[in-house]
Amino acid sequence: MQVYLIRHGLAGESGSYANDDERPLTKEGRKKARTCAQRLNALGIAFELILTSPLVRARQTAEILKEEGLSPALEVFAPLAPGGSLASWLEWLSNWSQQPLALVGHNPDLSDWAETLVWGEARGVIVLKKTGLICLELPEAEPPVGRSLLTVLLPPKLLAS
Amino acid sequence: MQVYLIRHGLAGESGSYANDDERPLTKEGRKKARTCAQRLNALGIAFELILTSPLVRARQTAEILKEEGLSPALEVFAPLAPGGSLASWLEWLSNWSQQPLALVGHNPDLSDWAETLVWGEARGVIVLKKTGLICLELPEAEPPVGRSLLTVLLPPKLLAS
Repeated sequence: MQVYLIRHGLAGESGSYANDDERPLTKEGRKKARTCAQRLNALGIAFELILTSPLVRARQTAEILKEEGLSPALEVFAPLAPGGSLASWLEWLSNWSQQPLALVGHNPDLSDWAETLVWGEARGVIVLKKTGLICLELPEAEPPVGRSLLTVLLPPKLLAS
Repeated sequence: MQVYLIRHGLAGESGSYANDDERPLTKEGRKKARTCAQRLNALGIAFELILTSPLVRARQTAEILKEEGLSPALEVFAPLAPGGSLASWLEWLSNWSQQPLALVGHNPDLSDWAETLVWGEARGVIVLKKTGLICLELPEAEPPVGRSLLTVLLPPKLLAS
């Protein structure tokens, strides 16, 4: 099971919005997300479904990925909000079989989830930049925590240049 | 200290050569290594020095990287041969301060070295394909084993497409 973890793009500064959930991507953030999405598309990457955090900056990033043809489907998934639950997503995943799947969310959650899936615990050793991407290969026949493989870690500078 | 670990390209089949050390890259392997090198160059990646395993398939890969302008210097480094010694390289590194540095070698050694530097031990969880690339950020003020960061894991299909 191939799963891509994608961090949202550059968003407005925290202080400028009363509700952090509503912070949108900046103009530069939208542009970079679109350039990255176009490059991923050119590289032949595509998803069956994108699950996104409900926060505006993540939803906007996910919508750009969908607009650029990377996925036919996009759903908001509450456990992808900051501080969300890997266990909730793994429960959801136990009823899902299509791949590749993409998750759009926040850090440190996404890199923590990746490290937990690969090594069994999170230590903050995977550097995932905004608009960056991780790809994992999850085993299908056994629980994925501590049994998954890391196949891609792609900072946006290697996509958007 | 930024260090790139690059696996050699596709080489001839093991059975065809009396001495495994002499197996050269195939025509396809040379072509793919050159395409990857050109793309890395276009992305602005460059090294101060390439250290390569003495085996032909690694040396040829390293020479292609140098020919494509990725590094002004290339040296053969015996501990990068298969089954080589991370400790020997770390000892060499303690007298080296220029970055980025690139190592061209073999698997599972390179992904084992990366995992040891990042996680403290190798568990076979980082998938490094032929002509693929890992980038690590090593701390400068303390021993790097178990204290390094993983910043890039790039399979060739995301470079050579």
